Amino acid sequence: MTTTHFADRLIERVEATHSHLVVGLDPDLRELPPALLRDVTTLAGGALAAERFATAVIDGVADLVPAVKPQSAFFEAFGSAGVAALERVEEHARGAGLLVIEDAKRGDIGSTMAAYATAALGRLRLGEDELPVHDADAVTVSPYLGAESLAPMLDAARAFGKGIFVLVRTSNPGSGELQEAPLDGGEGPLYARVAALVDRVGAGNVGARGYSDVGAVTGLTYPEEAPLLRRLMPRALFLVPGLGAQGGQPRDFTRFLDAQGHGAVVAASRSIAGGWRTRTDPDEPPLEAVRRGAAEAAAATNGALTQALADAGLPGWQDRPAPLGSSRAD
Amino acid sequence: MTTTHFADRLIERVEATHSHLVVGLDPDLRELPPALLRDVTTLAGGALAAERFATAVIDGVADLVPAVKPQSAFFEAFGSAGVAALERVEEHARGAGLLVIEDAKRGDIGSTMAAYATAALGRLRLGEDELPVHDADAVTVSPYLGAESLAPMLDAARAFGKGIFVLVRTSNPGSGELQEAPLDGGEGPLYARVAALVDRVGAGNVGARGYSDVGAVTGLTYPEEAPLLRRLMPRALFLVPGLGAQGGQPRDFTRFLDAQGHGAVVAASRSIAGGWRTRTDPDEPPLEAVRRGAAEAAAATNGALTQALADAGLPGWQDRPAPLGSSRAD
Repeated sequence: MTTTHFADRLIERVEATHSHLVVGLDPDLRELPPALLRDVTTLAGGALAAERFATAVIDGVADLVPAVKPQSAFFEAFGSAGVAALERVEEHARGAGLLVIEDAKRGDIGSTMAAYATAALGRLRLGEDELPVHDADAVTVSPYLGAESLAPMLDAARAFGKGIFVLVRTSNPGSGELQEAPLDGGEGPLYARVAALVDRVGAGNVGARGYSDVGAVTGLTYPEEAPLLRRLMPRALFLVPGLGAQGGQPRDFTRFLDAQGHGAVVAASRSIAGGWRTRTDPDEPPLEAVRRGAAEAAAATNGALTQALADAGLPGWQDRPAPLGSSRAD
Repeated sequence: MTTTHFADRLIERVEATHSHLVVGLDPDLRELPPALLRDVTTLAGGALAAERFATAVIDGVADLVPAVKPQSAFFEAFGSAGVAALERVEEHARGAGLLVIEDAKRGDIGSTMAAYATAALGRLRLGEDELPVHDADAVTVSPYLGAESLAPMLDAARAFGKGIFVLVRTSNPGSGELQEAPLDGGEGPLYARVAALVDRVGAGNVGARGYSDVGAVTGLTYPEEAPLLRRLMPRALFLVPGLGAQGGQPRDFTRFLDAQGHGAVVAASRSIAGGWRTRTDPDEPPLEAVRRGAAEAAAATNGALTQALADAGLPGWQDRPAPLGSSRAD
């Protein structure tokens, strides 16, 4: 791959897969087929079950979507064994050609934020060596400590052609308590100030496709805010959570896209990774059900998204590169 | 120990040790004696060096201070091996009688926040078993997603007699960008709204000593704001970072205390854990230098804090229980 800018890489993957879908990997034990948890009695056993589940989801969707979004919390819940599983899951996803957006929502200051950056995106310096750690392609970060606090994470991102997504407008019911706080002097809600911050720190590194390496998390639950968010952050890629299980619709997502159908990806977790629940063969091995169920759900979601793009008058995929799956020798 | 409320436990430890000092464990490789890193070439090797360093600091300060504050980022920078080291360090600190405040600044929503809660404070449910993970006594959390987002973390805290500290006012130079954002209608800066949130969610569980299990992180760099913060959060324990390396002074810390000398603890990291730099015997083994240096620095800081309390007219330790060290049989 010759392109190294994160935004260009993500847009290339969207075009190559004909999909805006980012598949969340949230291995909450309640979301796994019960057969995977039989005889599991330790944190390490739980971590292994989570890893096998997430790996099967990846195998199901690898040719269908541009990226996966492992949720760090669900791996951390198994302790260090879970973090080891997260590392292997991310490596497996990269090996399958997927971009990895680590959903960790980190936020701290100075050398502490630099350490989080080392973990997620960067490399640990040991003498003359530089050792990759999670080596994700992008990571989500929290803005409460200000733009200054994001600098060490952004430094790591730029050293390795990676990206960050800043929480701007989240999809939870109580998100407005701080994010909608009205600022004095007509500045608007707090999230508008965060959006301005995102635009400012992203201005320094805009890729060939017009988007920067500083993106924004903007919940699908507020599609009516999409035009304002785009005006405030013309160069930011939007990572839009809330499709499927959280109630967001494909037509809502199209409001976050630019006229060329770029500038945003949409995340769905349980509605894809839980596709195994629709498999009906009781003799199908559970990991096979996870893989096939995720593939079916991702394909169906891709279809719904393509239809929504057409309904919104956005360009279809017909004049674009062929999808990954159809170019394979098999 | 019969007391289970987190705030009561922390205040008891302050009284027992005659100290308000929380020692930060930030094993940034640049802060370790170089001898500990000789021949270290892997993440696992770095994690082991960090663990040995943090363990020696704990051994040095265990009888002198109420709590330690391991900074998750510096362990995560070694990947899963670092998280395993963090787990052993926290276990070692608990075994030494210290409270453990995990500085992780987590923040997410719903089941994801519940997973972070499992990792830091709670237990993973596997069938009929409940397995502790990090099992810290308290954890720092980020408020940007609103009070609703904190509920799963607070549920875990309350199930196990633990606490949370919400970022309200941080000590970094750029903290004002969002935290000082002036709200419409004379409400004041954004951090005042966060403070009100802390007070509200903490009201449900106030301990015998008058403080709740929902504390606040309030940087030592703004001591003039202490009276406002206390008025907004009368029941919140303040975790005050910024002593020593960040430039904060003991006299500034006294402004965060109530008339009985309670209601706040102060955190210092590099100025304590870096005490080995003042050891002059070139033949002293490096871990011994770390242990003794940390003990000396903690004792000196305790002395400076005690003097500052006296200067501020706050009650001294003379009428209180004897410190831990003097009550031991040896």
